[in-house]
Amino acid sequence: MKISERAVNIQESPIRKLKPYADQTKSRGIKIYHLNIGQPDIETPREMLDVYTHYDDKILAYGPSQGLDEYRTNLVRYYQQHQIDIVRDDIIITTAGSEAIIFTMMVTCNPGDEIIIPEPFYTNYNGFATMAGVKIRPLTTYAEKGFELPSDEEIEKLINSRTRAIMICNPGNPTGAVYPREDLERLAELVLKHKLFIIADEVYREFVYDGLTHTSILHLPGLEDKAIMVDSISKRYSACGARIGCLISRNQELITAGIKFAQARLCPPTLEQLAANAAIDIESEYFEKILAEYDKRRNIIFEELQKIEDLICIKPKGAFYIIAKLPIVDADDFARWMLSDFNFDNETVMFAPAEGFYATPGMGRNEIRLAYVLNETALRKAMIIFRKGLATYIKSR
Amino acid sequence: MKISERAVNIQESPIRKLKPYADQTKSRGIKIYHLNIGQPDIETPREMLDVYTHYDDKILAYGPSQGLDEYRTNLVRYYQQHQIDIVRDDIIITTAGSEAIIFTMMVTCNPGDEIIIPEPFYTNYNGFATMAGVKIRPLTTYAEKGFELPSDEEIEKLINSRTRAIMICNPGNPTGAVYPREDLERLAELVLKHKLFIIADEVYREFVYDGLTHTSILHLPGLEDKAIMVDSISKRYSACGARIGCLISRNQELITAGIKFAQARLCPPTLEQLAANAAIDIESEYFEKILAEYDKRRNIIFEELQKIEDLICIKPKGAFYIIAKLPIVDADDFARWMLSDFNFDNETVMFAPAEGFYATPGMGRNEIRLAYVLNETALRKAMIIFRKGLATYIKSR
Repeated sequence: MKISERAVNIQESPIRKLKPYADQTKSRGIKIYHLNIGQPDIETPREMLDVYTHYDDKILAYGPSQGLDEYRTNLVRYYQQHQIDIVRDDIIITTAGSEAIIFTMMVTCNPGDEIIIPEPFYTNYNGFATMAGVKIRPLTTYAEKGFELPSDEEIEKLINSRTRAIMICNPGNPTGAVYPREDLERLAELVLKHKLFIIADEVYREFVYDGLTHTSILHLPGLEDKAIMVDSISKRYSACGARIGCLISRNQELITAGIKFAQARLCPPTLEQLAANAAIDIESEYFEKILAEYDKRRNIIFEELQKIEDLICIKPKGAFYIIAKLPIVDADDFARWMLSDFNFDNETVMFAPAEGFYATPGMGRNEIRLAYVLNETALRKAMIIFRKGLATYIKSR
Repeated sequence: MKISERAVNIQESPIRKLKPYADQTKSRGIKIYHLNIGQPDIETPREMLDVYTHYDDKILAYGPSQGLDEYRTNLVRYYQQHQIDIVRDDIIITTAGSEAIIFTMMVTCNPGDEIIIPEPFYTNYNGFATMAGVKIRPLTTYAEKGFELPSDEEIEKLINSRTRAIMICNPGNPTGAVYPREDLERLAELVLKHKLFIIADEVYREFVYDGLTHTSILHLPGLEDKAIMVDSISKRYSACGARIGCLISRNQELITAGIKFAQARLCPPTLEQLAANAAIDIESEYFEKILAEYDKRRNIIFEELQKIEDLICIKPKGAFYIIAKLPIVDADDFARWMLSDFNFDNETVMFAPAEGFYATPGMGRNEIRLAYVLNETALRKAMIIFRKGLATYIKSR
């Protein structure tokens, strides 16, 4: 019995595929600093955790397919705090941002249709595209230029009769890029001109540094029929395990269709929505404190990376990732080597080879993504080990 | 901007589409007895709820894509209690049975491939098939015959070069049919002969009456490469809102591929898995009590339906649904009428028109599905109102 071709072809997570090596490393008693995955060490807000400990219903019942009314009502208020004006019925609550992207791809595209996405991009977009039968057309951006959005001309080269949407991740995972408003306006003109949808993954909205303001795709006028925003509470509230996200659009035909997909899987987790709901009115201090913490980490990791000769890396403006172009040939080999062949005082570092974040073959082979999700002490220590490892690896080639 | 064709074509839930009518009914102060949806009124086990109230981790973190190791380890023991011998790595934990079915369809089929499913079937299979680009070939079964499995000849008529699998729901939603072991052995021979997969949705395993024994597809020898079982805790523990299910197969190639799909969406809800894990060793009394309760309800609803002239209905052997063929033309119209135009002492009854459970056009138009998920008093009351409503409706035509 053969499995399906799409099951053969779907990308293995380049972030998670190193897990077996890491398991072996740990079994040899070696400690790993995890800079490979976006699991923050920040505590989930007390308000959310209290919902679980105070839960006193007797039945864990289904909720509505579109999400709990109360939660959607309150989400409107959360978005208003970010100058995003929507109404309750523009929102579909999803099982994490993942499901929001799958639904969005299915609603906007038929199998064989294309979506243009700046690369490097969040690697799981590949998996979602395989599920939806969508072809991703990568729009290459470069480490040397801070992964800035290419010119209109470069983008238009990728548009053809199967193109249905342009999708961005802003602030960017894995790039850390934050698109200025002018870039979004350029994209808005392009999608209006070519009659495309524009999809924005904005799950890192709160993580923007240097006093920059984040521009949401929903801030721009004239895109009512075209703009779809996908969101998640995973990073915002350090609640990755809750699996709550949403899909937002002012295009009611699109929302009505999205609800039919949502009905098929009945509903997102009920209690997790109640927990997310409890975090809506969290004081702004919570985010200010976290942002200051991440900013500190960003400065540390950037400073430490600058100590490495021939390394290319521009300081990221958002999210909590940084891409570095290393003076080596094969970052995948280096990542495995760090786990299997290297340690310093019984410690080593794990990170994500960046090749898997590119769709263009050969791109990113000497790049890595580091997630600065560890506290200052751990991060400094990890970076010392990283530098020693890299030097040893280069010498050994 | 046009939405995609699949978004236009995906079936609206025939169970959930009556909700706007029901909302209006309620706003007029009329009480509705809900026999339309499989939301049990049984309490979720204390062991599960305690996991939430005693939760003391500080971070709601990601879990492994395949599911928590501890939970999968313990699930092996649960299945052993049902004479199903599997190992931990045969299991992928999914976000409810829904995701298990989506992954299964994607892993076994390419877009355009076909799966044979006895109809009437769980209506959301249609939505999952649309998402996966799979064509469902309905194998019609009949109320008059208790929805028994048709002959090999009838099944083989539907097999062609695009057929990839036969899928059953056993015990059956919406039919209440429980396939005897001989039927599964017939299907096993067919899938071996024609080199197909066999997929069994067994989420109602615990709900089998009249002292019958449930046969799992994983009980049958010789199907190691072919059998996939999908499961869920929603009905078993009355935990529909937790959204925890799983996909099980001894075919390692299939599991390995399934994990890649699972990696794309990162993981199922973490805390909900811990809750499900706490229910593994629940005493068998819990199920005996529930089974006795449902058996009582089954007898009541069957007895009440028997009082209706010209109604066709065979006593179901499993799950908690019953299909009745009514002496009317259009059950959809009747269902809406019951909500909009009828009440008895300010009360009415909601149920699911069965047409949406059939894929063959025109089938099931005069049939309805009733979920016997209410307690004895409510159920008797609901059935009196149902009979009065039906009589009035018939007279008014």
